[in-house]
Amino acid sequence: MLEVINVKTTRKTELIDITHEIEKLLPNKDGICILFNPHTTAGLIVNEGADPSVKEDILAIFSQLAPEKFPYKHLEGNSPGHVKSALTGPTLILIVEKGKLLLGTWQKVFFAEYDGPRNRKVFLKFIEG
Amino acid sequence: MLEVINVKTTRKTELIDITHEIEKLLPNKDGICILFNPHTTAGLIVNEGADPSVKEDILAIFSQLAPEKFPYKHLEGNSPGHVKSALTGPTLILIVEKGKLLLGTWQKVFFAEYDGPRNRKVFLKFIEG
Amino acid sequence: MLEVINVKTTRKTELIDITHEIEKLLPNKDGICILFNPHTTAGLIVNEGADPSVKEDILAIFSQLAPEKFPYKHLEGNSPGHVKSALTGPTLILIVEKGKLLLGTWQKVFFAEYDGPRNRKVFLKFIEG
Repeated sequence: MLEVINVKTTRKTELIDITHEIEKLLPNKDGICILFNPHTTAGLIVNEGADPSVKEDILAIFSQLAPEKFPYKHLEGNSPGHVKSALTGPTLILIVEKGKLLLGTWQKVFFAEYDGPRNRKVFLKFIEG
Repeated sequence: MLEVINVKTTRKTELIDITHEIEKLLPNKDGICILFNPHTTAGLIVNEGADPSVKEDILAIFSQLAPEKFPYKHLEGNSPGHVKSALTGPTLILIVEKGKLLLGTWQKVFFAEYDGPRNRKVFLKFIEG
Repeated sequence: MLEVINVKTTRKTELIDITHEIEKLLPNKDGICILFNPHTTAGLIVNEGADPSVKEDILAIFSQLAPEKFPYKHLEGNSPGHVKSALTGPTLILIVEKGKLLLGTWQKVFFAEYDGPRNRKVFLKFIEG
C-alpha cells in the first residue's frame, strides 16, 4: 500500500501537523508506517504539538544552525534548507496499533518546510506485522 | 510483538546504554527492530559505547547547538530539550540476526535524555523478515 | 536478505553517492530497504545530488556545528565525527517499488564520511511488502 499526502506550505519555514492526514490513510490493523519526504529542502519531525511556540523555538534554533548568511557555494539561495533537511532526515518509521499511530501524549508528526512556500508531498507505506 | 523498555534517568542530560535491554526482548530470529521514543524532550542515538567521554562530547556540543540562554517562546524552560529531540529523532530501525542486533564493533544504542531526571520508556516492535 | 555495500572514502569528510550501489542489490519487487551504517564516525544522508556544491555546503555547516577546536574529552581527535554521526543517524528506511528506490527528483542517497579516509561498509536489508 503506497499513499500520498499533499501538503501546501505557506511560509518560508514552518512545521505543519500531518498526524490526522496520516491516520486517515491507515487501515484498522497493527503494523508499521513508513513516511518518506521526497524533497531536499524539507523534512519530517515528531515533537510537541500542544504549545505552538515549541515549533517556533525549533525553527529559530535551526535558523541559527544553518544561517542565511554564510559563504555557501550552492547558488540557489536555499542551502540553509538543504542543511536543515540533512539534519532532520527524509524518513520516519512509526508503530501502528489498530489503525492508530503509537505516539506519546504530546507528540504530533510534522512536515518541516525549510524553503517554502511550496506544494509538497509525503509518501506513506503501511506494512502489516 | 510490542514491548516496552523502562528507562530511569538521573541527570538533566545523559545518554543511557539500552543495548542489552533491547536484546533481552528480541526473539531468536532474523528481522528488524523498530524503537520508538514517545517523549518530546528525549531521543535515540547510536554511537560509541567504549569510551564514556564520547557521550559527554556529544552532549556538550548539543548544549551549544541548543543553548540554555536563548529567547525561546515556549515558557516551560525545556526548549533546548525539544530542539535536541527534533535533531536526533524519535525512532530507530535496526537489523536483527538470530536475536542479536547487527551493530558495529563500537556501537551501542543509547536513550538520550535531554530534560531529566525522569521515568521514560521506549517502545520496541520486532518484525520477522 | 542481508547485503553489504563497501565504500572507500578518500577524504576526511565527504558525501559519497551510493544510490546506484543500493539499487543493484534490490530485487525486482515492492518493499522497504533498510540501510544501516555500523560506524560511529559516519552516517547516511539523503539530499540533492545534482549540484555537488550542496554536499560541500552541508559538510561546511556540519564542521561549524561540531568544530575541530573544542574542549573535547575523547582523546582520539575524532569527536567532531562522533557528533556529526549522532546528528545524522545510522539508519535509513527507504520505499522500494519494483526494485527501484522511491526518491524525489533531486534526491540521492549518500554515505557520509566524517573521519576518513577509511574503508567503510553499509548493510542493506530488503523486506518485501
